Amino acid sequence: MRETVRICEVGPRDGLQIAKGRMPTAVKICWIAAIAAAGVPEIEVGSFVPARVIPQMADTEEVVRRSLAVPGLVVQALAPNLRGAQNAFHTGAHKIGIPVSVSEGHSRANLNRTVDQQIAEVASVVAWLRGQDLRMPVVAGCSTAFGCSIDGVVTTEQVVRVAAGLAAAGVDEIALADTVGYGHPAQIKQVVRAVRAEIGPRLTTLHLHDTCGLGIANALAGLEEGIRAFDSSLAGLGGCPYAPGASGNIVTEDVVFMLESMGFATGIDIERLLAARAILREGLPDEPMHGQVEKAGIPRTFRAAA
Amino acid sequence: MRETVRICEVGPRDGLQIAKGRMPTAVKICWIAAIAAAGVPEIEVGSFVPARVIPQMADTEEVVRRSLAVPGLVVQALAPNLRGAQNAFHTGAHKIGIPVSVSEGHSRANLNRTVDQQIAEVASVVAWLRGQDLRMPVVAGCSTAFGCSIDGVVTTEQVVRVAAGLAAAGVDEIALADTVGYGHPAQIKQVVRAVRAEIGPRLTTLHLHDTCGLGIANALAGLEEGIRAFDSSLAGLGGCPYAPGASGNIVTEDVVFMLESMGFATGIDIERLLAARAILREGLPDEPMHGQVEKAGIPRTFRAAA
Repeated sequence: MRETVRICEVGPRDGLQIAKGRMPTAVKICWIAAIAAAGVPEIEVGSFVPARVIPQMADTEEVVRRSLAVPGLVVQALAPNLRGAQNAFHTGAHKIGIPVSVSEGHSRANLNRTVDQQIAEVASVVAWLRGQDLRMPVVAGCSTAFGCSIDGVVTTEQVVRVAAGLAAAGVDEIALADTVGYGHPAQIKQVVRAVRAEIGPRLTTLHLHDTCGLGIANALAGLEEGIRAFDSSLAGLGGCPYAPGASGNIVTEDVVFMLESMGFATGIDIERLLAARAILREGLPDEPMHGQVEKAGIPRTFRAAA
Repeated sequence: MRETVRICEVGPRDGLQIAKGRMPTAVKICWIAAIAAAGVPEIEVGSFVPARVIPQMADTEEVVRRSLAVPGLVVQALAPNLRGAQNAFHTGAHKIGIPVSVSEGHSRANLNRTVDQQIAEVASVVAWLRGQDLRMPVVAGCSTAFGCSIDGVVTTEQVVRVAAGLAAAGVDEIALADTVGYGHPAQIKQVVRAVRAEIGPRLTTLHLHDTCGLGIANALAGLEEGIRAFDSSLAGLGGCPYAPGASGNIVTEDVVFMLESMGFATGIDIERLLAARAILREGLPDEPMHGQVEKAGIPRTFRAAA
């Protein structure tokens, strides 16, 4: 029996939100369906934020509705506050992601709130959701958990404190995000251990960027600490608004290649995943696309017994 | 006290030998001097092979001679056989690298010998060197140790057998090379452990390619198994003749960034290393250059205590 690792594709949200171009809604749906058809179990399909703030996410309601028709897919949507969470709930998303910055500078710049105010906002979302008939899981994503381009160093103690606050607020899952890609493997291990010591298995996920080339190594470090869920993005779509030219999220194709090579089960068919890049290319012709497996081709030894 | 990791820059050999363009000798020297000035302790500066086989290496003798004037630099040269090793010795190189394929297919294609014939060639090189007045260390590089684009799967047993043969031949160091970039972290760990169990600390080095995006993760896997020496190439120069479009050796800048971030001492100044890219760009204007740290910039948290 191979152990399972769960991939959540975040390209349609984290990737598209900072893309220069805008992907037409019909192409988004087609792209999401292709990724799901390759076996990706969860996709963050959009973000319930005002269209004036992130115009690329203006069609999130429609994207969520139409993604619900994709067989077997867990449809996740991001919402930064109670209002967004209520919209996500009423639209029928299966799962909601809420960002909470660990560093004050990023919290203010990204959410216009202090860290503690955002933890309180998460608590109000959880409380509101508990009053509804339908159960909707919440995953809180700790942004800038491994460093911040505004505040600089983020300490392990800061991350533990925020994670503990979110656990107390009652979220179902907690993700640690290397938002600006400053993390390194030893740090990933140290922070994962410390957070798990505080909140236990509610820490499920790493959300990593490949800004400085350490994204996949950081995923390996997390894997070795027992992390079994990763966010990633097809073709490494995205980037970092604070590091022009840097690549974005870790590349789904390459992460899946590593995991499957190492004997983990992702449920994902890499060839079909690679094929989904064509839709991305069509929908965003000018966006840089990353990924080494696509360039090199799948090695002939892939999944062969050694 | 930080633990030391030794980087051997192989761009001037492994990178340039498959580059489309030819770097003028004067630029090579300037580039090698700049890499050394950044603190890289060892550079493989060329290869003693017939110029008709690899024209980019035709000036190796001159490059070795002039590299010897670079202060503090260990000048390594590659030689595939006794004759090349004798040339390297007489030219004054400090250290010699000899490639030995683990897979028969690659051995035949690359060296026109069987694996055992090449192990015997290495033994003859060591025997000849022992008869000289000056001691010259030999590092044998086990090519295709993690898979072969011709033979496919390479087993751990094959690697152990070749490494044992090379240890018996009397080489000073053994490197395991993921020549075509098929390796994954679990495999790296398994093979390193098995080879070390057989030959002990004579296994010093990993030579990794980033063909499928796992190069840095594979370096991390090796590091965790106690490997403290890596080959790498500035800007990831090189590639793989069997995988057009794939990137080459792991990127020196990114590896050094990971190691220094994790608290290891490489003796290398990353900013000066990044600056050496300009000479490469000048000498080979059309060659693709890789590396995430260069694109993203060095994070403000680099080397700051967390």
